Amino acid sequence: MRPQIVLFGDSITEQSFRLGGWGAALADTYARKADILNRGYGGYNTRWALFLLHHLFPLDAPTPPVAATIFFGANDAALLGRTSERQHVPLEEYKENLRRIIQHLKKGSPSMLVILITPPPVDEAGRFEYARYGDKAMQLPERTNEVAGEYAKQCVELAGELGLPSINLWSKMQETEGWQRKFLSDGLHLTLEGNVIVYQEVVKVFDETSLCAQKMPSDVPHHSEIDGQNPEKAFKLQCPAI
Amino acid sequence: MRPQIVLFGDSITEQSFRLGGWGAALADTYARKADILNRGYGGYNTRWALFLLHHLFPLDAPTPPVAATIFFGANDAALLGRTSERQHVPLEEYKENLRRIIQHLKKGSPSMLVILITPPPVDEAGRFEYARYGDKAMQLPERTNEVAGEYAKQCVELAGELGLPSINLWSKMQETEGWQRKFLSDGLHLTLEGNVIVYQEVVKVFDETSLCAQKMPSDVPHHSEIDGQNPEKAFKLQCPAI
Repeated sequence: MRPQIVLFGDSITEQSFRLGGWGAALADTYARKADILNRGYGGYNTRWALFLLHHLFPLDAPTPPVAATIFFGANDAALLGRTSERQHVPLEEYKENLRRIIQHLKKGSPSMLVILITPPPVDEAGRFEYARYGDKAMQLPERTNEVAGEYAKQCVELAGELGLPSINLWSKMQETEGWQRKFLSDGLHLTLEGNVIVYQEVVKVFDETSLCAQKMPSDVPHHSEIDGQNPEKAFKLQCPAI
Repeated sequence: MRPQIVLFGDSITEQSFRLGGWGAALADTYARKADILNRGYGGYNTRWALFLLHHLFPLDAPTPPVAATIFFGANDAALLGRTSERQHVPLEEYKENLRRIIQHLKKGSPSMLVILITPPPVDEAGRFEYARYGDKAMQLPERTNEVAGEYAKQCVELAGELGLPSINLWSKMQETEGWQRKFLSDGLHLTLEGNVIVYQEVVKVFDETSLCAQKMPSDVPHHSEIDGQNPEKAFKLQCPAI
């Protein structure tokens, strides 16, 4: 069994295998080393994510994932009294839900590498353009960058409390001039360049651990190591059953 | 457990999660429905692939994959007496090796959907440009389109004998004017547009089966089906353990 790395999150995770997506890029980086499993659920907040824990991460799994990214908050941070309010989760509950998710994962596998990712920043102008017409039309912003930042802060604080690595995407993206259009396609979801940032930040965290792709063994010998006249030799160790 | 679809093949499979790759595109199509597992091994031919069968597809797997693409031949078709001759596998042996791969998969799971994919065409001029210098420099072509076509023919014939779906990529790509540069980056591997063709052809086969992505159930309720006031209700069926 190849090690599994699970990407658990909302639409930004669910869409991570689209053209240029950060999940697909990770899968390429870990080719022949680990399977990258997409467990993204568009529109989900941490409150609804709790219902999925036993379904996605059964405590009696014989081979639990070696790592997981937890990437929620963009929906939790939707504002009360606005068009997306049913997705809203209060700030303190968001932090506690994240804690329960982590506790569950660590209960199933104490050695699992758990990486927390904050929600990205919100470009309010971009959201308005996106939601100008039809059912989704907004009169007032349904997410603000300031509020998303509060959720990001709780996420990073929790990682600190628990000694887990975290990626402050909210801050990181805003370091770049023009982040609003450069990284976000509709004020919330990622452009190709936004995906690159997430990919780079996630790899940076993995590279500091034993799950650094370059340090992990490749599944079965590289073809250049196979003796054309005597291929058995190269496979004896890893594939002895033949 | 989410159903698994395995992509088994050589470098054209191993690289299928690169930017715009057909594997990543499949993973996106099957988001929340099936996991797409990359089991591509660059440089491998069918002779070496046989050594991997018990390793990748153990006969006692509790939940074998629901489907697999078998995509070999580009290396088997390397010419004897040329720079890539160690990868060469004779035509008849290629067909027999494919048959053994299929027999193994069907033994592990008789219901598994097995899809055969022929090698792509070879653009000899593109191969020369790619291999003009250094260690890889060629004096004579190490692969020809004609020979690749013979392997493609065997692959399609075998699928016919066994009643399995197949994709004749060798023929399909050559239907398009300028296929040499449009679909192949170095005379052998796929460009972005080449990846699109493979993706479309694979989806076309799946769409004729019960594994059509649009007909498969999504993992857990869509967020719009969750009652914000009473989320338990939406999860009762699929996630009863909470």
